[in-house]
Amino acid sequence: MRTIDWVDGAIELIDQTLLPQTVEMRRVTELPELIDDIQRLAVRGAPALGVAGALGVALITASVRAELGDAELDAEEVRRQAALLREARPTAVNLSWGVDRALAKLPEGADAVLTEALAIRDEDIAACISMGLRGADLTRELTAKDRVRVMTICNTGSLATVERGTALGAIQTLLEQGALEEAFPLETRPLLQGARLTAWELQRMEAPFRLLIDSAGPFLLSRGIADAVFIGADRIAANGDTANKVGSFSLALAAQHAGVPFIVVAPESTIDMSTASGADIEIEDRGVDEVAGFAGVRTAPAGIGAVNPAFDVTPHELITAIVTERRVIRPAAGETLAGVPFEDLRA
Amino acid sequence: MRTIDWVDGAIELIDQTLLPQTVEMRRVTELPELIDDIQRLAVRGAPALGVAGALGVALITASVRAELGDAELDAEEVRRQAALLREARPTAVNLSWGVDRALAKLPEGADAVLTEALAIRDEDIAACISMGLRGADLTRELTAKDRVRVMTICNTGSLATVERGTALGAIQTLLEQGALEEAFPLETRPLLQGARLTAWELQRMEAPFRLLIDSAGPFLLSRGIADAVFIGADRIAANGDTANKVGSFSLALAAQHAGVPFIVVAPESTIDMSTASGADIEIEDRGVDEVAGFAGVRTAPAGIGAVNPAFDVTPHELITAIVTERRVIRPAAGETLAGVPFEDLRA
Repeated sequence: MRTIDWVDGAIELIDQTLLPQTVEMRRVTELPELIDDIQRLAVRGAPALGVAGALGVALITASVRAELGDAELDAEEVRRQAALLREARPTAVNLSWGVDRALAKLPEGADAVLTEALAIRDEDIAACISMGLRGADLTRELTAKDRVRVMTICNTGSLATVERGTALGAIQTLLEQGALEEAFPLETRPLLQGARLTAWELQRMEAPFRLLIDSAGPFLLSRGIADAVFIGADRIAANGDTANKVGSFSLALAAQHAGVPFIVVAPESTIDMSTASGADIEIEDRGVDEVAGFAGVRTAPAGIGAVNPAFDVTPHELITAIVTERRVIRPAAGETLAGVPFEDLRA
Repeated sequence: MRTIDWVDGAIELIDQTLLPQTVEMRRVTELPELIDDIQRLAVRGAPALGVAGALGVALITASVRAELGDAELDAEEVRRQAALLREARPTAVNLSWGVDRALAKLPEGADAVLTEALAIRDEDIAACISMGLRGADLTRELTAKDRVRVMTICNTGSLATVERGTALGAIQTLLEQGALEEAFPLETRPLLQGARLTAWELQRMEAPFRLLIDSAGPFLLSRGIADAVFIGADRIAANGDTANKVGSFSLALAAQHAGVPFIVVAPESTIDMSTASGADIEIEDRGVDEVAGFAGVRTAPAGIGAVNPAFDVTPHELITAIVTERRVIRPAAGETLAGVPFEDLRA
């Protein structure tokens, strides 16, 4: 089952807001629906958003062509609608990356846009396989262990990509290699992607795991519960600073304190060399409602305010390694994104 | 309104599991009810548990005397029941401290036990006033600011004591002195004492504040949102290591990283010189149900496991100061609990 795909002229995606209770595929035929699905996190996860952006441009292009019949494609209208899609979530660099890559084929016509979008989908699948293999090998190297215990946050599994995933994909690779002793996903307030989605995926892959509340993660690292921390990324700046789900920074501090490797697993498309450092990354504030309640139950008193950053930024000096499909960069040891050469995909 | 008190021969306490929706005083006349109230956190907070322990022994003593008419008090039976009360929550040192202090008066009779329990209640009120004054002065000294922004976790307010509170009491003192710019309470998963109780208390005292999810606290400290972190304590070991609500350790690491003072506000009764260090403190695991859902709403898939430590331990080297009603100890600067002399209460 793919998290997001192109089926018979429209986008199909799993509505992740209904998991783990209900597994429902949504068929999306209009741009406003797709923007809404992105904003309410029915589709989420940096790589999946890249694919959503590209398939979204294919959807726009097909719809503009349909309206104008066989007349020449109205490129200006496609670009106007694509701009709306690009702004659906500001922090996620992959969304605009996917939009722009598909849009670049617009001069060659609607078919070329769709072909590019499908290529992005297929590259995502191949990239996840390669990241998983690199991540698993690196973990064995850094921990000098045959079987490892790994802590992770948010959902970075198949639900965050098309198949397999990034950080959780690397955990799946360890599992397939008989090298996973136990996984420790954090629940990931406020939207509980860890408790709802990662726990569901770990259960489906029959991995040994126990769930933690977010603030137990740093303490349990100090007590030696895990050999490594894996996170995904929403945006990696040129200096290696990494924006990811809020809570990542706190795990990175605790991993450093405990002497445990802290590993970012993310595709090359997450790296944004035009953003110099974490200080330049805009952090979405998602408002008070998510904080004032839990799973639809109001918990805090009425009338209060909140600070609700969707992401945090982990400085590169706390990151042991960034694992992509093409290479491993070790920022804490002084390696830079600009300085580490690309290698072939692993498969 | 007092959180816990002795009224007409029985214990009255606010049922904190119903806040902030409902403010209900419960009248407790039997030991099993009190043990149940302690275990389900209807009454909670280290100092309030000390008072609950002492008033509980008064309740036991009165009940044993009532059964035996005017016959001599059955001390063995009182001690047997008091032992059950002492074990209601193993990590909270104040509970057994309150039980033992009241029990020590048993040879002098039931009236002496009650008098001692009421003295503990009154001392708690006086201690909170003194801690608040010391904490507010220290914060101005350490931050060199007239108005400060303070982050805190869990509930350490009047609901955790009899009146005013410890860490939140110090925030209230800053507010009364016109020195509180803003408070940032963390919601405090899994039971959300911060979102439910601390937000309710801050709103009642008309303090400026915004609520945070737990894992946003460390990141927002790194972005300079607060000038100091105040926490309470469940047990302070002889070397200054402090057991408190899980999430405290993570705030301490982040406070150190951000160069912000990390201050424990707790009464002398929380200090346990018979526990050498944090490694000797037993950490309750409260099981999977609290982690897998909230307020009766299940969020994680069925059949999973969890690690759910109710407390964590912050090592003394991360603690800028411990503020009690009688003194200020600065562990990160090398001061020890054994080395700092007592002073008079402030009022």
